[in-house]
Amino acid sequence: MTKIAILGAGMMGTALATPLADRGHDVRLVGTPLDGEVVRALRESGLHPKMGTSLPDGVTPHDVSELPAVAEDADVLVLGVSSAGIPWACEALGPLARRGRPIAMITKGLVLDGERLVPLPDVVQRALPEPVRDETFPVAVAGPCIAGELARRVPSVVVLTGRHQATLDRLRALFETDYYVPLTSLDVEGVEVCAALKNAFAMGVALPSGMHEGRGGAPGSVAMHNLESAVFAQAVIEMSRVAVAVGGRAEAALGPPGAGDLDVTCNGGRTGRFGRLLGLGLGRDEAIRRMEGATLECLEILAVLRRAVPALESSGRLAPGALPLLTHLMEVALDGRPVSLPLERFGATA
Amino acid sequence: MTKIAILGAGMMGTALATPLADRGHDVRLVGTPLDGEVVRALRESGLHPKMGTSLPDGVTPHDVSELPAVAEDADVLVLGVSSAGIPWACEALGPLARRGRPIAMITKGLVLDGERLVPLPDVVQRALPEPVRDETFPVAVAGPCIAGELARRVPSVVVLTGRHQATLDRLRALFETDYYVPLTSLDVEGVEVCAALKNAFAMGVALPSGMHEGRGGAPGSVAMHNLESAVFAQAVIEMSRVAVAVGGRAEAALGPPGAGDLDVTCNGGRTGRFGRLLGLGLGRDEAIRRMEGATLECLEILAVLRRAVPALESSGRLAPGALPLLTHLMEVALDGRPVSLPLERFGATA
Repeated sequence: MTKIAILGAGMMGTALATPLADRGHDVRLVGTPLDGEVVRALRESGLHPKMGTSLPDGVTPHDVSELPAVAEDADVLVLGVSSAGIPWACEALGPLARRGRPIAMITKGLVLDGERLVPLPDVVQRALPEPVRDETFPVAVAGPCIAGELARRVPSVVVLTGRHQATLDRLRALFETDYYVPLTSLDVEGVEVCAALKNAFAMGVALPSGMHEGRGGAPGSVAMHNLESAVFAQAVIEMSRVAVAVGGRAEAALGPPGAGDLDVTCNGGRTGRFGRLLGLGLGRDEAIRRMEGATLECLEILAVLRRAVPALESSGRLAPGALPLLTHLMEVALDGRPVSLPLERFGATA
Repeated sequence: MTKIAILGAGMMGTALATPLADRGHDVRLVGTPLDGEVVRALRESGLHPKMGTSLPDGVTPHDVSELPAVAEDADVLVLGVSSAGIPWACEALGPLARRGRPIAMITKGLVLDGERLVPLPDVVQRALPEPVRDETFPVAVAGPCIAGELARRVPSVVVLTGRHQATLDRLRALFETDYYVPLTSLDVEGVEVCAALKNAFAMGVALPSGMHEGRGGAPGSVAMHNLESAVFAQAVIEMSRVAVAVGGRAEAALGPPGAGDLDVTCNGGRTGRFGRLLGLGLGRDEAIRRMEGATLECLEILAVLRRAVPALESSGRLAPGALPLLTHLMEVALDGRPVSLPLERFGATA
């Protein structure tokens, strides 16, 4: 029986436990230092307090103090923390990393190293101790996957991306069920750019619903869908441009990590609500205030991109003016400028 | 003052009259032989009976009998008919075509010539009389544009595609307003493949909402969005593959005619309703019966593709098995097979 330790009992870490347990694995779900309440609830009621779903047979919840014991004989480690938890997780991983023990992570995105954008799997790899580091190729899980749906076994297609095909194949074989279908891609840059940017662009796609509401319109079949879809298309185009600029493939934007994940993220949630508030014309500060402290990944990635884009442009990897939508989203969400989508600078195809 | 004759007073032909009139043109909206009622209503009440919007100043409605007089001094002709009206329109166009009189068409798609897929602008060009034919390059309008929204001046981005950049530029300059933004593309094959396939794929994206409903689920934030977006992403991937197979560019799928138009089409309408019924498990014949005679473009394009794909495969332009989603949609919608989406054959990126 394969033993899998998931580090982090948030929504997605917990949701992933369901297909892994259904696949017949021994799954240990270990809370982070911030997951004490969740682990207690899972132990007492079996219900995840945020998702309202119960853990399937084969999953045992553990407190963070049990991590060393629980991970000791694990065949696979899964990082189930948010991007904010990555520094802690990298430290925690150090003593647990072993040759031949693959690391998967539901966390995805890009971090800034100076002016360079580095995909998270590379960040995690660098944090591993020698000599395990040279033989471990962390794998990120991307694609359209809402945790609450996965925990309810809604069919989901995801993409495992990493730099070592054999590791990808091994994890694919271990993770796949009839409703959880992992595909694989070696295009770490392309997949991670799309995964990171989708939050910023989903905010952009939500602007028109706020604009419509602000003009007194009711939701319905005649709203501002034309504008939403114009933004959606431009978002996919700009994802492909950034992917190429960072060394990935334009095609990543076509697939589950690009168009797919953007589409699922546009179904609502925090990012969409924030975009709607901006579209209403509230202004950045008031919109943030109304979000009542919710984590806004879109702001984080926009701030990262603002610092990275000039270097990509000056090195010739990105044509100046290639990102009119993203640039305007920065102006709106970071600088508090009013919404005025630059449609005439959008692209016809790519 | 530029004089523009729109042939066809359906939803989109009429909607396009709004930006053209706002641009200051003299717009003549001419009904087809099937538009008698619409033209009468437009003359009597000024309201379009299907859209509920009124014609702006600068647009005059005309009966088909007035076509020769109205088109006589027109600077631009616009075909505003559905694809079913193309044979009639081609015949009507013959005597109206003139050197230096561009032809735009809101109709888009592919027709089968033997086993070859021919984009509609080429079909219309071929139908023109010599010698005008050699100097006229019909332009199709694609991209996410719901007619009812355009008529209400919702900001919309569209793509003008044709084989002659100067014609594209001229029409772009004539059509553009602050809310109607036409971009241009010479990739006729890529744009038209996406425009044609989006109806079939929108049907596919709607299957999960029916499946969810069939299992007793209510619409909401936890539905089957993961599956919808997996299908959405695969649709964009397969659009790009067909675009390339037909001689177009993969990038068309990234932009307004691909991801954009698919996105807007997924907001509901006939195609979505039909897909939902199929997802409910009703079976093809019953689903068609419940659509009560509505035109289902998705069935038409699936039938066309069924005949075209074997030739694309045998000529090596399309890899066998490259279209698992489209193939399954044919099985479901044409053959009445039950829905069983082949997720494991979906693509990771493209």
